[in-house]
Amino acid sequence: MPYVNIKITKEGGPDGKGPTADEKAEVIAGVTELLSRVLNKKPSTTFVVIDEVDLEDWGIGGLPVIQYRQQVS
Amino acid sequence: MPYVNIKITKEGGPDGKGPTADEKAEVIAGVTELLSRVLNKKPSTTFVVIDEVDLEDWGIGGLPVIQYRQQVS
Amino acid sequence: MPYVNIKITKEGGPDGKGPTADEKAEVIAGVTELLSRVLNKKPSTTFVVIDEVDLEDWGIGGLPVIQYRQQVS
Amino acid sequence: MPYVNIKITKEGGPDGKGPTADEKAEVIAGVTELLSRVLNKKPSTTFVVIDEVDLEDWGIGGLPVIQYRQQVS
Amino acid sequence: MPYVNIKITKEGGPDGKGPTADEKAEVIAGVTELLSRVLNKKPSTTFVVIDEVDLEDWGIGGLPVIQYRQQVS
Amino acid sequence: MPYVNIKITKEGGPDGKGPTADEKAEVIAGVTELLSRVLNKKPSTTFVVIDEVDLEDWGIGGLPVIQYRQQVS
Repeated sequence: MPYVNIKITKEGGPDGKGPTADEKAEVIAGVTELLSRVLNKKPSTTFVVIDEVDLEDWGIGGLPVIQYRQQVS
Repeated sequence: MPYVNIKITKEGGPDGKGPTADEKAEVIAGVTELLSRVLNKKPSTTFVVIDEVDLEDWGIGGLPVIQYRQQVS
Repeated sequence: MPYVNIKITKEGGPDGKGPTADEKAEVIAGVTELLSRVLNKKPSTTFVVIDEVDLEDWGIGGLPVIQYRQQVS
Repeated sequence: MPYVNIKITKEGGPDGKGPTADEKAEVIAGVTELLSRVLNKKPSTTFVVIDEVDLEDWGIGGLPVIQYRQQVS
Repeated sequence: MPYVNIKITKEGGPDGKGPTADEKAEVIAGVTELLSRVLNKKPSTTFVVIDEVDLEDWGIGGLPVIQYRQQVS
Repeated sequence: MPYVNIKITKEGGPDGKGPTADEKAEVIAGVTELLSRVLNKKPSTTFVVIDEVDLEDWGIGGLPVIQYRQQVS
């Protein structure tokens, strides 16, 4: 009975606005396979929920992501 | 002091794009009443937050929901 | 495909240390039935996860729960 | 290694549709500084994620926020 | 900037009380590698948090996990 | 109506097993004050929930925290 929540910044992908449905499907397949292989969890009761988060809503190092990257680069 | 987070796939409702505000209000009322009745939790300090999740962002059985339903049907 | 997370303060129940397994089972049954009845969600793909939180880890009104209750009573 | 998730109702700000990017940046800076000062957590490994939630998706006292405020006012 | 939260039922592993630290490390490595490979996310800013949940706190099909398994078997 | 969830690694504090109740109270007070001051959120409907996470359950850079620190130091 795993429940996996993956939060990512909304960026990248073909138009810079986040991953494609195919890329998300690959993530869903990959994490489900991983939990099955390593922890013996059944895929049929494995949920994966992906949340894309706008860059201004994600902070690291005390700064929103964009300012953080400008600072560290 | 309960905090309840309900994540559902964004579908159903009158236009297939998710529940109406009235349906969500019924869910909020119902879960708050349930926690009051069974666990004696005060409604005035019970929060309920509903998240609707796009179908391509929800996986089960290693597949996004739509492909999963095609496979099991 | 609902996923429901219920966080409650760890208190109440027969010994003051939280609800019994039977009470939790009643909550699980109740919220699953509610989502089936109101939103037409299938119980077989409804997950409910209950977290009990120590009183010192829950704040409201800028205070941990115990101090908050002393203040408002 | 803190991860902070802040959920707020989507309201307020200059147009009533939620806080500005600058206000969110101030929240990110403030909570990161707080955890550094009180708990000695390193800002470089502190994540802050802000979620804005529509008013109809947030319940308190068994009611969606708007009805709740009408009732208590 | 991914944040991944993996909730699993507390069972399995050498003593039936959940995965070993090595198994969890393998999950952490695997999901981080997956997000790097598929979504180009940097491992250095990928957090993974694993929560183990007692069987009586996890419901599916309207029942706690143990009763659910007895019913479907 | 804010809900704030703060996850931290379980370490530090007087015995190395996490912050004291007083330190957590200071975090609760600080984040509630911050949201009141910057976003005009009412403290009486601000919840803060703190989760302490064992070091083996937190990963960064593809490694559990302890190995990660050994690697970067």
